[in-house]
Amino acid sequence: MPAYNAFYAQSGGVTPVINASAAGVIQTAAKYPEQINKVYAGEDGILGALYEELIDTSLESEKDIEALKRTPSGAFGSCRYKLKSIEEHKAQYERLIEVFKAHDIRYFFYNGGGDSQDTSYKVSQLSEQMGYPITCVGVPKTIDNDLPFTDCSPGFGSVAKYVAVSILEASMDVASMSSTSTKVFVMEVMGRHAGWIAAASGLAADERGLGPDLILFPEVDFDREAFLAKVDATVKAKGQCSIVVSEGAKYADGTFLADSGTKDAFGHSQLGGVAPVVTQMIKEGLGLKCHWAVCDYLQRAARHIGSKTDMEQAYALGAEAVELAIKGTNAVMPTIVRTNDKPYEWKLGHAALAEVANIEEKMPHDYITEDGMFITEKCRTYLAPLIQGEDYPEYEKGLPKYVVLKKHKVDKKLDPFEGV
Amino acid sequence: MPAYNAFYAQSGGVTPVINASAAGVIQTAAKYPEQINKVYAGEDGILGALYEELIDTSLESEKDIEALKRTPSGAFGSCRYKLKSIEEHKAQYERLIEVFKAHDIRYFFYNGGGDSQDTSYKVSQLSEQMGYPITCVGVPKTIDNDLPFTDCSPGFGSVAKYVAVSILEASMDVASMSSTSTKVFVMEVMGRHAGWIAAASGLAADERGLGPDLILFPEVDFDREAFLAKVDATVKAKGQCSIVVSEGAKYADGTFLADSGTKDAFGHSQLGGVAPVVTQMIKEGLGLKCHWAVCDYLQRAARHIGSKTDMEQAYALGAEAVELAIKGTNAVMPTIVRTNDKPYEWKLGHAALAEVANIEEKMPHDYITEDGMFITEKCRTYLAPLIQGEDYPEYEKGLPKYVVLKKHKVDKKLDPFEGV
Repeated sequence: MPAYNAFYAQSGGVTPVINASAAGVIQTAAKYPEQINKVYAGEDGILGALYEELIDTSLESEKDIEALKRTPSGAFGSCRYKLKSIEEHKAQYERLIEVFKAHDIRYFFYNGGGDSQDTSYKVSQLSEQMGYPITCVGVPKTIDNDLPFTDCSPGFGSVAKYVAVSILEASMDVASMSSTSTKVFVMEVMGRHAGWIAAASGLAADERGLGPDLILFPEVDFDREAFLAKVDATVKAKGQCSIVVSEGAKYADGTFLADSGTKDAFGHSQLGGVAPVVTQMIKEGLGLKCHWAVCDYLQRAARHIGSKTDMEQAYALGAEAVELAIKGTNAVMPTIVRTNDKPYEWKLGHAALAEVANIEEKMPHDYITEDGMFITEKCRTYLAPLIQGEDYPEYEKGLPKYVVLKKHKVDKKLDPFEGV
Repeated sequence: MPAYNAFYAQSGGVTPVINASAAGVIQTAAKYPEQINKVYAGEDGILGALYEELIDTSLESEKDIEALKRTPSGAFGSCRYKLKSIEEHKAQYERLIEVFKAHDIRYFFYNGGGDSQDTSYKVSQLSEQMGYPITCVGVPKTIDNDLPFTDCSPGFGSVAKYVAVSILEASMDVASMSSTSTKVFVMEVMGRHAGWIAAASGLAADERGLGPDLILFPEVDFDREAFLAKVDATVKAKGQCSIVVSEGAKYADGTFLADSGTKDAFGHSQLGGVAPVVTQMIKEGLGLKCHWAVCDYLQRAARHIGSKTDMEQAYALGAEAVELAIKGTNAVMPTIVRTNDKPYEWKLGHAALAEVANIEEKMPHDYITEDGMFITEKCRTYLAPLIQGEDYPEYEKGLPKYVVLKKHKVDKKLDPFEGV
């Protein structure tokens, strides 16, 4: 059997460890020279395939590929672009086949979340529906931790660690100054539909009273009175209160808190930010001095405080995707299977792409306390292992030595494509 | 000569390394048992002295005192409280003397910024003006880097490292997704009156195009047209733009950008946040997709990414304060003296508190580029050494093992004080 080339691409929002999966794919493919010739990375995800913008990863140094394990962002560029169905947009699939044929590509690895695994699934159907022999394996990734069938999603553990460390530190800051200064601190984290990231902040709460005192989840309808009562009681009891709020926190009618009020001088609705809204509410309702922070991209780019467990799983899943493809397994996504909580043990499994695509894994109801404003012990048991271990990047001149790849393009063989 | 007790307290906004100075004071005092008996820490700064809330640091374990080097916040509590002059509020100074007498305190170490060194100065005048024999030495600290006579202020280097690392990571994130997603990222940092922290973000800018593309300083009057033109040109040239804005950025008439527009649904002016204001401006002016983050307390609490240079200097200044006091030097503050840029070399000096108090060290004009939106090479040369070196805390269960002291109080000997 002759060796064919592989296509790898990154899709959707990037994570602190998506590049570790890329390293897993590239380094593992190199172990099978009789099956896989080169790994071509798509520039900006699937768009790289459609536009024939292919990066020859074999021209990167081994050192740089290794450094991907500790480099945030998407090293090959990522995209927010979802393929329509084969029926709806056949031209795009014909183009993919044209590009794959032109470059001898018969393996397809797509590194992304739920939407992206939908794309992987559609590509995996090319052999059956359009007769092109391709083996397609999805590589899971999303900071939102909302992929089904896998115990956790690579990227989430590092973001979880970042938010837990950040609120731990900020809560200590507030505690040390609350007698004459700020009484309430509000930190906004990502999670439009699921409260996994907000929940992770709860890991910082300890018997010493550090960490968040309350957490607002998208899963729980926001109740202003109950919220203010808990803030008030917390400040009265311990002198200050630290709050983590998910960007997706919303009222019972579905309105996001972030969209519920702020207008600029011209009366235009202002861009996002639930932290200032919550802060204003506390200031007006309780008259307390508040401060707020919005983590935004900092949380999902913070490789400097990445979780070792997360990095290892991201790498292992990239590697496993290649192993599965080598065995000829099409239309699957490798997964993390938890085999034990304490001590934490995990192994690799896999799920069918047909079942993974477009399903969002919600946080179980019993992960949130009765009052809707904190995590339960059960949730803690689930989350705790995911932030374990430090895995620092190298530093140079006081800054992390993150790699920027050379990204040598493969010569184009086709006419430009206009069908995006 | 019998040994007397020493009073140490933390004042003003805390930093990632103010506790390293505390460790410097406590560990160095222990070397001079013939001069210094115990170090009593004031709970919540000078208030601890006025209220007779004294923490006996000799009852903390050596391990915990050592761990202060890698613990953020103010371990003994800090305060925002400024003593008035002896003439204006004599009763407070009489109370201080009463407390010092009751607890055999003849050394006074006050760890703070400009306002706090004003308090140190007033206390240092007690011997001369009120006949109480006290030796008073200030210990510098402020993330704002605005203390005079010292080359830099402990706390600044770590915040500088945090903002440089954060914008480096976020700029990589944006670059990897800008073809189909966010084009502009805005990160707000502290610095109400001086742009030192914003300037430090510029250290992340490199020949690869990473880091911030433009920086808004409080020192430069904001020019909307010039700003939008530069954002537009940057996005056209490289596909995206990363911006760091100081909370103190303002218009020529002195209005803070943060106060210039956002109102809530009831027409009330909204709490702070210059990042959303700038973002809204870009969205409306250029129609680009933007994201924004506000670091707030996260930056000044982020001991997990503290600068080793900063930690060492904070410790050395605490230690030197004791050395000066032991020599009988009253009314001074130890300082950092830079003796060489490349390689970076520094030594300790000291300045008279009378001259330090209430002076703000501004950023030199030639540290900002002609267009007012970036740092010069000269600024880079100054800043670069301050973020050098990593000095990680220990971790346990995935989180930094920060110490919370036992804080055993010294028995009170006096009646309560009502004069605060």
